Amino acid sequence: MGEFALIQRWFSALGVRREDVVLGVGDDAAVVELPGGQQLVAAVDTLVAGRHFPVDSPPRSIGHRALAVNLSDLAAMGAEPRYALLALTLPQADDAWLQEFAGGFGALALQHGVALIGGDTTSGPLTISVTVLGCVLPGRALTRSGAQPGDLVFVSGTPGDAVAGLPLADRPAPTAALRARFEFPAPRVALGRALAGLASACIDVSDGLAGDLGKLGAASGCAIEIDPARLPLSDALLALQPLSRAQELALTGGDDYELAFTVPASSPDLGEIARVTQTRITRIGRVLPGAGVWLRNGALVTQVAHRGFDHFGP
Amino acid sequence: MGEFALIQRWFSALGVRREDVVLGVGDDAAVVELPGGQQLVAAVDTLVAGRHFPVDSPPRSIGHRALAVNLSDLAAMGAEPRYALLALTLPQADDAWLQEFAGGFGALALQHGVALIGGDTTSGPLTISVTVLGCVLPGRALTRSGAQPGDLVFVSGTPGDAVAGLPLADRPAPTAALRARFEFPAPRVALGRALAGLASACIDVSDGLAGDLGKLGAASGCAIEIDPARLPLSDALLALQPLSRAQELALTGGDDYELAFTVPASSPDLGEIARVTQTRITRIGRVLPGAGVWLRNGALVTQVAHRGFDHFGP
Repeated sequence: MGEFALIQRWFSALGVRREDVVLGVGDDAAVVELPGGQQLVAAVDTLVAGRHFPVDSPPRSIGHRALAVNLSDLAAMGAEPRYALLALTLPQADDAWLQEFAGGFGALALQHGVALIGGDTTSGPLTISVTVLGCVLPGRALTRSGAQPGDLVFVSGTPGDAVAGLPLADRPAPTAALRARFEFPAPRVALGRALAGLASACIDVSDGLAGDLGKLGAASGCAIEIDPARLPLSDALLALQPLSRAQELALTGGDDYELAFTVPASSPDLGEIARVTQTRITRIGRVLPGAGVWLRNGALVTQVAHRGFDHFGP
Repeated sequence: MGEFALIQRWFSALGVRREDVVLGVGDDAAVVELPGGQQLVAAVDTLVAGRHFPVDSPPRSIGHRALAVNLSDLAAMGAEPRYALLALTLPQADDAWLQEFAGGFGALALQHGVALIGGDTTSGPLTISVTVLGCVLPGRALTRSGAQPGDLVFVSGTPGDAVAGLPLADRPAPTAALRARFEFPAPRVALGRALAGLASACIDVSDGLAGDLGKLGAASGCAIEIDPARLPLSDALLALQPLSRAQELALTGGDDYELAFTVPASSPDLGEIARVTQTRITRIGRVLPGAGVWLRNGALVTQVAHRGFDHFGP
């Protein structure tokens, strides 16, 4: 199958059919109508085989994750996802692989009301780059930079599961449930939208909770203090690892695609948001004057040196 | 230099500083304001080393082309370019390479008023995926599908130069002028915008003039007839190749990033548009009922079999 047939077959009808897509896949570019008074939100993230996922990952998982990591970026902005563009570089066009990949991408797109409006397919080493576009009301976008000393720090879900779900030679074999947490992360779109206008700062957890909270703190000009005893750890993780190792994975593992965010201490309780969005939300610390990420174990306070995963770091 | 420092250093201030960028590079996603009553236009194109450009291409050319091929897509829609997102996969972070790459990308962005509003940098085989966003007035976007029998077919510039400018072992060495046509193509943004609301169909020439006009014809449900004697051939190309070979390169070479378009025969003369946009525009054929791309040499009419470059084709 040629490139154009390939796009037509696998990517022309993925996701939701939206009334406001004037021109989608198949022309030189896509045209969409935006309603008045909204802001466009755009993000792009790339997955490289062997680096962001094991080379033998199920293609359905690869398709899901390529979109999920981007929707997670929109979630961290409090934006409503609308459109996606897919740049897919493939060693060869394999129908079975593409069907599964498109299935994983498409199912998540449907779930979040996202229309795939464009793309490009090239041959080369397996690399997937997705651009997502969304909207948010002016002034409501969540950023990393709004945290203030005194704010409370929260995280969604149970971080640490995803990295524990990645099969590695030097680790206990993950259960199917943990494995699914790596292969099919659920971007916290509903939570992000509910937090827009409420949270003072927000970031998605892709490189590890401590490292990503470090970025939020740096952008806000504040220190972040985490109480490790408060970290929400899943039963699945605790069945596999001792507590201290489970806490370490929750703080440094990455690939969680949870939201870490801050809210003013005077804010209303988040229980209603947790209930409506069906998302576990846990207070894990507070914002302090200063810099860095600090762990408080009773009277012992230590600074976290981990900087999160860095593709070109030492 | 780490990934985050790398993005900060090379990509946080590329292109124009726009008042309507609410949040650009450095957060999870970018936020932009759109004025009321406009449509957003989005496109993504990927360049893979060794496939879309020689592995030893000057990095300045790679940066230029990564944006140019995308701006050419917007030009083919008649859209005004506004924003770009860059997904860059690199074997290693090399300062000298990045400076030149960013220089080439940034100079073209400045020239076209484009703000780089987001991106992602990963390590892996050299692959560059760019998403561009632009605007067009509702109903004015050019498509491939509007050509009607009787319309006239035009092309901008002098196709064939770019492929002749690509140094290949089995070809005469290109002059510096031809080489620049491959390495630094000029996307026809001003022309595309001038044609919006005037041309009946438009496509950018990336895979070869004959193949791309074939796509336009197929999308419009028409045949395209080209008069090879009318093809605009540059003096530089004719100095390097005999006429018949020059015509062949103009029809099949690709990488031109010119616009091929159709206008109703009743349209006003395009001379004023050519003058204002400082772009050579040449009538090369006409739209006929039927299908396929046909060459007319006096009484001899032949059908073009070439389908354009296809990444996964036979």
